[in-house]
Amino acid sequence: MSEQTPLTPLDLPEGDPFGPHNLPYGVFSLPGEAVELRRVGVRLGSYVLDAGAAAAALGSPYVSLLARPTLNPLLAAGRTAWSDVRRALTAWVTVPAHREAVLPLLHPLDDVTLHLPFEVADYVDFYASENHATNLGRMFRPDEEPLKPNWKHLPVGYHGRSGTVVVSGTDVVRPSGQRKSPADPAPVFGPSVRLDIETELGFVVGTPSERGTPVPLSAYRDHVFGLCLLNDWSARDIQSWETVPLGPHLGKSFATSVSAWITPLDALDAARVAPPERSVPLLPYLDDTAPPGDGMADEPGGYDLRITVTLNGHVIAETSSAALYWTAAQMLAHMTVGGASLRTGDLYGSGTISGASEHERGSLIEITWNGRDPIELPDGKRTFLEDGDVVTMTAWAPGPDNTRVGIGEVTGRIVAAG
Amino acid sequence: MSEQTPLTPLDLPEGDPFGPHNLPYGVFSLPGEAVELRRVGVRLGSYVLDAGAAAAALGSPYVSLLARPTLNPLLAAGRTAWSDVRRALTAWVTVPAHREAVLPLLHPLDDVTLHLPFEVADYVDFYASENHATNLGRMFRPDEEPLKPNWKHLPVGYHGRSGTVVVSGTDVVRPSGQRKSPADPAPVFGPSVRLDIETELGFVVGTPSERGTPVPLSAYRDHVFGLCLLNDWSARDIQSWETVPLGPHLGKSFATSVSAWITPLDALDAARVAPPERSVPLLPYLDDTAPPGDGMADEPGGYDLRITVTLNGHVIAETSSAALYWTAAQMLAHMTVGGASLRTGDLYGSGTISGASEHERGSLIEITWNGRDPIELPDGKRTFLEDGDVVTMTAWAPGPDNTRVGIGEVTGRIVAAG
Repeated sequence: MSEQTPLTPLDLPEGDPFGPHNLPYGVFSLPGEAVELRRVGVRLGSYVLDAGAAAAALGSPYVSLLARPTLNPLLAAGRTAWSDVRRALTAWVTVPAHREAVLPLLHPLDDVTLHLPFEVADYVDFYASENHATNLGRMFRPDEEPLKPNWKHLPVGYHGRSGTVVVSGTDVVRPSGQRKSPADPAPVFGPSVRLDIETELGFVVGTPSERGTPVPLSAYRDHVFGLCLLNDWSARDIQSWETVPLGPHLGKSFATSVSAWITPLDALDAARVAPPERSVPLLPYLDDTAPPGDGMADEPGGYDLRITVTLNGHVIAETSSAALYWTAAQMLAHMTVGGASLRTGDLYGSGTISGASEHERGSLIEITWNGRDPIELPDGKRTFLEDGDVVTMTAWAPGPDNTRVGIGEVTGRIVAAG
Repeated sequence: MSEQTPLTPLDLPEGDPFGPHNLPYGVFSLPGEAVELRRVGVRLGSYVLDAGAAAAALGSPYVSLLARPTLNPLLAAGRTAWSDVRRALTAWVTVPAHREAVLPLLHPLDDVTLHLPFEVADYVDFYASENHATNLGRMFRPDEEPLKPNWKHLPVGYHGRSGTVVVSGTDVVRPSGQRKSPADPAPVFGPSVRLDIETELGFVVGTPSERGTPVPLSAYRDHVFGLCLLNDWSARDIQSWETVPLGPHLGKSFATSVSAWITPLDALDAARVAPPERSVPLLPYLDDTAPPGDGMADEPGGYDLRITVTLNGHVIAETSSAALYWTAAQMLAHMTVGGASLRTGDLYGSGTISGASEHERGSLIEITWNGRDPIELPDGKRTFLEDGDVVTMTAWAPGPDNTRVGIGEVTGRIVAAG
């Protein structure tokens, strides 16, 4: 042994947002490996721990949950297993006795391929930001109240296409479809000319529930494993023409991007905040102002994730999910109160996250006010996305002891319509 | 050998709608068997052939597609395999040399448990009946054109919840949710008081497609394996309050029932009919009036399925899917034209099938004209469904040589809210 132990991937710089206080889960493979060999990895700094191999090397029973091609077996294992596995992982990357076994199983992030981390069952997208819903209402219905009458009584949401949820880094082909401006005598067909982003959080369901049995606010953490960033790419022109009376379809179905890393809720306790004050009384199943107990929430329901959105490297928005009116627990309670069951791998999105100020808007339609106020980039103006544009969302959350918890980025590049 | 061969399950009465010209696929288990042992069955008359066991007994390579707990492996095998397997099955149940092997593998339908026949990937529901859309428009927007401007330019549709697609015979728990009548100062919560049916066809996708690559009209039969009856249970009061601006959610997410039997398209050639005349020109990707070839359809796109709906045994509607304005091929072409990929197990519904006359309406909201004209049943009047009500949809289609092709029924009973 030398006098000074050399730095290894286990010796992270102080304050690394992907330290042992974080430990998000993904699925990776190494160069040259067949896709069937992909397996669960846990991010530590700028390395990926082969979690199943570590479990095997250290004689852990969790090899059956971790040496798997998706997170679904771990997701299905339930809250107690999630805590136990996290405790084991924390020990593997912090206890000196494990260093020798663990070090060879850490791969530089730049060397690995990251895959969609879980098989998506159903995907529901909500509309939980009051600022976002108000902005869109002002734009499209200037003579009415910006919020529809139901908006403060229930978290409005709809089902999206789970088969086109893709992992961060996947190219997004510009969708084609029908659009019709008021001046057009008939719809025209072609590539979308109003391609947009939606800056969202995505929540990943682990524990399933029975059809006919609602999940109360208090059971949120028994069912939801973790969260990620989510970009719900939206073709505003296609959406606008198709959307009456049954809602969005092709304007949203071509791609939804999620982070390669799912942050467990257990890493986000310090990020919890009280949601905005409720300006109308809530029905009991959604009332998170009620005292804890008896199915009511026993902890603040919001998350203060600080999100930055860049377009071709230039910051176009900085916002926080603390401003969401509806919490993840309320969305889950609402989604199931009619009897819908949950499956392992269900994903639900918050809807676009926008704050009160102009710089906190999470979609281009809001940032450019429906194209009226283009943004200036070094290569020209933008109202909506152009081919070749790269959108990247990054985030961090307050962690324990003044640390930051890094959230896996979600990025994607627009490719010309085929 | 006696002078007269005794009748066996292979000796069907003449004209049996489930004869060898039909051969729909399901998934079954026998009494006392664990659910893991469920396997593909093929219906013949009032019997179920254990298809994988037959393949094994007769040395067929299709055992790998048929001795499986869902239809998904067969669905994924593609059009050529579908035709080959159907040809083999036809031989097994008709060629005298196979009788001895096959007879012990036929189980009375009354003895088996039928399961959801395939794992549902994404579920999209369309709105393809002009009469249905017009009726709803007249009811809810009496001062406007009944059809929205987009309706004749594209098949309107939206994503539903695939996790609550259930097999025929599954009880449906009355959903609870928020509703608000104009007179209510605020929404109230409780069991739906306007629980309805939607009489639909469901189309089952076998062959997947790539993200970014549309499926043209001409490729419909390469991707779609077969069809079934579908009842898209709908809570009209919940739907009405929640639906702006993003469409239905809890009003539809509690249950969608499908037949236990999937009828292969190959059994339905004699049922094909030209769809109604198109009253506005269609964009090229939807234009089934164009000459065949070059991605255009080469056969009539509609199906003349004669559907009967009963409520507690009393016929409340008789309609035909021939009246659908949009065909299954058009729905598929539209669903994918924006770049959405298909997965094996994708399911899409036609939307409520209503004809021009009052007796041909496929939902209670139309039959009772939003509750104004109750129907009379022996046990009392009905506007919407009451607890204990049983709704059953049956259908047949014209088959070859003046036969009828029976379509598996879809039935369900309403259970009181929990």
